[in-house]
Amino acid sequence: MFQKKGPIDRFNLGRQLTRDANASVSDILARTSSAPPRTAIRIAMTGPPGTGKSTLINNLCRRHLEAGYRVGVLAVDPTSPFTSGAILGDRVRMENVCEHENFFIRSLATRGAHNGLADNTPELLMTMDCHEFDEVIVETVGVGQIECAVRDLVDTTVLVLNPACGDYIQAMKAWVLEAADIIVVNKADLPGAEKLRVALQSVIRVRQHPAQAWIAPVIKVSHEAGGGVAELDRLLSEHLQWRRSRLDPLERRRARRAYHLTTLVARRVSETIGRMSPEQLDAGLAEAFANLVDALR
Amino acid sequence: MFQKKGPIDRFNLGRQLTRDANASVSDILARTSSAPPRTAIRIAMTGPPGTGKSTLINNLCRRHLEAGYRVGVLAVDPTSPFTSGAILGDRVRMENVCEHENFFIRSLATRGAHNGLADNTPELLMTMDCHEFDEVIVETVGVGQIECAVRDLVDTTVLVLNPACGDYIQAMKAWVLEAADIIVVNKADLPGAEKLRVALQSVIRVRQHPAQAWIAPVIKVSHEAGGGVAELDRLLSEHLQWRRSRLDPLERRRARRAYHLTTLVARRVSETIGRMSPEQLDAGLAEAFANLVDALR
Repeated sequence: MFQKKGPIDRFNLGRQLTRDANASVSDILARTSSAPPRTAIRIAMTGPPGTGKSTLINNLCRRHLEAGYRVGVLAVDPTSPFTSGAILGDRVRMENVCEHENFFIRSLATRGAHNGLADNTPELLMTMDCHEFDEVIVETVGVGQIECAVRDLVDTTVLVLNPACGDYIQAMKAWVLEAADIIVVNKADLPGAEKLRVALQSVIRVRQHPAQAWIAPVIKVSHEAGGGVAELDRLLSEHLQWRRSRLDPLERRRARRAYHLTTLVARRVSETIGRMSPEQLDAGLAEAFANLVDALR
Repeated sequence: MFQKKGPIDRFNLGRQLTRDANASVSDILARTSSAPPRTAIRIAMTGPPGTGKSTLINNLCRRHLEAGYRVGVLAVDPTSPFTSGAILGDRVRMENVCEHENFFIRSLATRGAHNGLADNTPELLMTMDCHEFDEVIVETVGVGQIECAVRDLVDTTVLVLNPACGDYIQAMKAWVLEAADIIVVNKADLPGAEKLRVALQSVIRVRQHPAQAWIAPVIKVSHEAGGGVAELDRLLSEHLQWRRSRLDPLERRRARRAYHLTTLVARRVSETIGRMSPEQLDAGLAEAFANLVDALR
């Protein structure tokens, strides 16, 4: 993992990511190259807007860059300082790490991803693997859909909350918590952090099946007080080791493939419906369904 | 609309809604009855958790019940007091209207709707039409996906925000605003309400195309101060009139059909992938895609 690598080929990497982001379903299906061997550990950082994911990622990346890793970030969070999706949002900058020679970040428009699925994240992650990254962090946001979707693509999912997002926590369905491998109570200097940590911990303990073996730890991180990032780092390694010892890589690959196929069909459906004639659409439901399915190939 | 109707057949309506909610894709495609004529005006109330949608719906329903309408609510909001999805949430009650003979409410598990689509909302709305409702309000929550999805099924989409949900507004993509026909700044007694109203109004004015003709009004509603619900009511009627004069009903029906087909295929894909053999999944991407599509019928 620490062998000497050449510099990141930023020009070609950037161009390939743009090509991936714009690729149609047919483009993707026509690619003859098979998936490159997985090189990068993939971590998803997810949670509602404003919980401090960017700062957390910044601090984590800095540690890993100092340790000699090549680190990439794919930011699909519309509130991310790197993404232009925010309407009334301020922009800040990840100044600490952006200039590092082993760091690469790309923000992604979620253009087609209204349903939380129709995007080319699998292709983008494969492209990162072609460029010898040791770690890729996917930053994402949502009230559940996206967290759940991204889970099949990554090794570890970190859910980032903070004491100020009580409304989100109320809205959160159980499976959001269940999708998380590690839960961070961020901005732990805010009042209510310990109370939130204890509440989450108790929900996890009750809900998670004992046979599942990995019980998501809930930790507090405070960038003001400076604590918690080292512990997060330790837990990430621990979870990765646990995964390697427990999970069937073939089964994981199939889950990723299932996710990939689902997104491709969803996009193809949307393209196909756009081309269906009014008569085909107006037919009886079963007939219209058959018309659509026949046209998907 | 005000002709005398018999009492709501709560037993059969409830049973049919349960049947709809649990129906598989094959069940739905096998139904021979065609869609009933649309009777109910359909309104979506959407927005992030904790903005006071339930109170707003309560107040709106009370007005309409007093005016003699038969009103139904389908609550797909996991934070709704009627839904059991909340993890740490308190339950409150819509006491004002729940006992009314012309009122019916059903909370919906979003079980299969991780992608914001895979649910049977079209069937549930059709069933409401079979029971002579004059108005059906769909209460929903999300950071965009669901708002956008529900839009094709309803006549009017009301986006409910409040001055406390700044994080949400920062995360909100432009198309969330564009999907709204009316925007409510709720809890307008909170500080910052007027500032939020003005900010939203200016974004709408800039973004919306003049030829689109309907420019979503932004209004303040305060249940403390008691103002705004009558204005919301007036705007709902105005928007409905505008729709009737401008929009092609055939085109709308096709948009609903397209949405319906998309959700059905998404569910069928998920069922089909579960039945695919490891060999079928492990094939090259294009081949696995073809295998999947062939198996959808």
